[in-house]
Amino acid sequence: MVIENASSTTPTTLFTRVKTIASSLKIKHVIVDFAINIKKIAEVDSRRITHSLKVALAIIVVSMIYFVQPFYNGMGEAGLWAILTVVLVSEFTVGATLSKGLNRGFATLLAGALGVGAESFASVFGPTIKPIILGFLLFLIVALATFLRFAPSIKRRYDYGVLIFILTFALVSVSGYRVDKILKLAQQRFTTIVLAGAMCVIISMCVCPVWAGEELHKLIVNNLEKLASFLEGFGDEYYRTSNGDKSFLTAYKSVLNSKGTEESLTTFAWWEIGHGKFRFRHPWKEYLKVGVYTRKCAYHIETLNGHLEAKDEAHSKFKEAIKEPCMTMSSEVGKVLKELGSSLKLMIYPSSSAVHIKNCKEAVEELNTALRASMVAEYDIQEIIPVIASTSILVEIIKCAETISEAIEELSKQAHFLNIGLPQMLVSGGEEESITITIL
Amino acid sequence: MVIENASSTTPTTLFTRVKTIASSLKIKHVIVDFAINIKKIAEVDSRRITHSLKVALAIIVVSMIYFVQPFYNGMGEAGLWAILTVVLVSEFTVGATLSKGLNRGFATLLAGALGVGAESFASVFGPTIKPIILGFLLFLIVALATFLRFAPSIKRRYDYGVLIFILTFALVSVSGYRVDKILKLAQQRFTTIVLAGAMCVIISMCVCPVWAGEELHKLIVNNLEKLASFLEGFGDEYYRTSNGDKSFLTAYKSVLNSKGTEESLTTFAWWEIGHGKFRFRHPWKEYLKVGVYTRKCAYHIETLNGHLEAKDEAHSKFKEAIKEPCMTMSSEVGKVLKELGSSLKLMIYPSSSAVHIKNCKEAVEELNTALRASMVAEYDIQEIIPVIASTSILVEIIKCAETISEAIEELSKQAHFLNIGLPQMLVSGGEEESITITIL
Repeated sequence: MVIENASSTTPTTLFTRVKTIASSLKIKHVIVDFAINIKKIAEVDSRRITHSLKVALAIIVVSMIYFVQPFYNGMGEAGLWAILTVVLVSEFTVGATLSKGLNRGFATLLAGALGVGAESFASVFGPTIKPIILGFLLFLIVALATFLRFAPSIKRRYDYGVLIFILTFALVSVSGYRVDKILKLAQQRFTTIVLAGAMCVIISMCVCPVWAGEELHKLIVNNLEKLASFLEGFGDEYYRTSNGDKSFLTAYKSVLNSKGTEESLTTFAWWEIGHGKFRFRHPWKEYLKVGVYTRKCAYHIETLNGHLEAKDEAHSKFKEAIKEPCMTMSSEVGKVLKELGSSLKLMIYPSSSAVHIKNCKEAVEELNTALRASMVAEYDIQEIIPVIASTSILVEIIKCAETISEAIEELSKQAHFLNIGLPQMLVSGGEEESITITIL
Repeated sequence: MVIENASSTTPTTLFTRVKTIASSLKIKHVIVDFAINIKKIAEVDSRRITHSLKVALAIIVVSMIYFVQPFYNGMGEAGLWAILTVVLVSEFTVGATLSKGLNRGFATLLAGALGVGAESFASVFGPTIKPIILGFLLFLIVALATFLRFAPSIKRRYDYGVLIFILTFALVSVSGYRVDKILKLAQQRFTTIVLAGAMCVIISMCVCPVWAGEELHKLIVNNLEKLASFLEGFGDEYYRTSNGDKSFLTAYKSVLNSKGTEESLTTFAWWEIGHGKFRFRHPWKEYLKVGVYTRKCAYHIETLNGHLEAKDEAHSKFKEAIKEPCMTMSSEVGKVLKELGSSLKLMIYPSSSAVHIKNCKEAVEELNTALRASMVAEYDIQEIIPVIASTSILVEIIKCAETISEAIEELSKQAHFLNIGLPQMLVSGGEEESITITIL
């Protein structure tokens, strides 16, 4: 029917009609897509809206310097520096804003002083040689500073500062050659930058602040929880006893690549003052260590997940024979990570996870007993191989969970987390320690 | 003797002497450390020195605008914008410089036009309401633009552009309220930025250029080679038959975290024109896919490496029984990756790796035969478990190598790599395909 209708109109009108519908659909499509995207961005983190409003607010406040006549006369072209500062310093987290603000302030001061020094030094040689000397100094200092930006320790914390240092030194030493009001200009510019920077920092800290430290804390807790959900659900999934939401099977994948975020949050957190439950000089570096071990655990889970995806691991008698210890190992190591995550979240000493580590080790022992008891010859080797491979990975994961637990204990000590004190026998299992966690 | 000597002087002079030596040692230490660090930074990549000199050169060239009188009279305060542009646009790779330069240029143009539009629109309402309308527009546009920076697609390529858009729009709409020379100012500023940006791009492209695309290409090849070295050496290491340099055992670890670098290089490469062996619109995105599979392979290797580190896997009869196929699997999969790496490096169609994939599959078959033949009951299960676990991972790695091979084939097709054409039977193994690569 549709084909008949289409063929009854001439090809040209048909083409035009289709084109019109297509283009109207396309425009609608683009607008709807845009709206959906905007909504998505906001849904991922609603604080993004607050941040946008905060930046707009800071710009408006700084613009007042221009809008209101008396201020303008006092500040002159420096208002430009105020807007530049606000746009470049306003960052999502307090730590990043503080880092950029302080870097900008100190770099301007240092470069200004050095610029004035270079200017005075070059002036000694008279007006003919002065530009050559200034140019040479400029070349030398810019090249050296640019090179230093590659040093990892400088890149991590002071990259923006060195950039501003280069910029300011170039401006001062070049403008210095032209005008001698250099000191007045420098003082004015510095005051503007400090005022605008301070305003950004204050807005960032007081209006719905986003603290990098808190974000890092949440990220590490979240990552632990993601791994925990996978492991808690793994047993049921492996023995095909569950149906329902399977999102926990892929959630862990974000942990594989969280290194960059963790490192930058740690860098920013270093700049922050105490906030909420976190003191100034909270041991943020320890979070990085927990992150490293968590990621190592995630690598193992990635391999383990391959076993779930492989459809060739049918049910086998051998798999059934070790079902109970396997299910226990997986769910107990999941509980270890969950407990570690929640004690970290609540900032208490991670004593409750010790019980589950003990259970894990007992499950490994049970597995060993089951393996010793089962006459392996009874089973086809084809059945044994994949099951043993995944069980081995589970054992590796249990080892990983122990290192994570140790790292969180160290963090808890350094951060003076509350020790709610479970009975000592549960906290450190005494002679239990001697159970080695290897299969057999 | 030393103790006697020490006790013969009075405690105070001793203390002072020690302190002097310590502090002189410390200063020497600091200087030596600094020199060593500088040397290290340069050694990692000597092009860092070139880059520093390039930036310094660009600054000097731009400073001429200030130093030479007639230029200064013509350019005015715009010289400031030239230096700003050079400092902010000069990046290590050509792609990053181009990206920043183009972003800066277009964002300035767009924001300037929009600023003039806003100014004219607000002027309609008379001088009293004008600042309120301009302020409202400024708030709205800054908030919206800041929010859009969170959109992943914008963040990836246009983040700097949006930042400059906000900055320019704020400056234009604010200064516009004050002076009506806005158009002349805008034109002057735009010309300066375009000239300075163009100069940076030209210096970046012509003086010892570092192309992001080429860097990405090298990084992916390097990563493949690192995994290949591990796998080629794994067999000897696992059977403790080798001594010597073991650096290949840890080199692969950098692959685990190369996602960020790969993604940013791909983004920068997108901006680059054709260079060397790479045409404009080289399929850079395909490199990302190869990167994903390479990383997945690296996760498996991380797990496999755990088996090397575990000291409890003693030599066992079972391990010896499957030594030959295991050694072959590991060395052949290493060769697959090595061949893939070198064909990618030479930009030829990866036909030579097919032979080794075939060998891998045959080795897996051999392993299966060996397993079938061996009466598993003969061995202690304790011997079997760790060996089977590591062998399973090797099989997973072989699967991974196949997906990497497919991804590189796809890349080779899209990039029109040279097909030097090996005999067809080797290129695609025909009936060989049916060999499934699972243990048994």
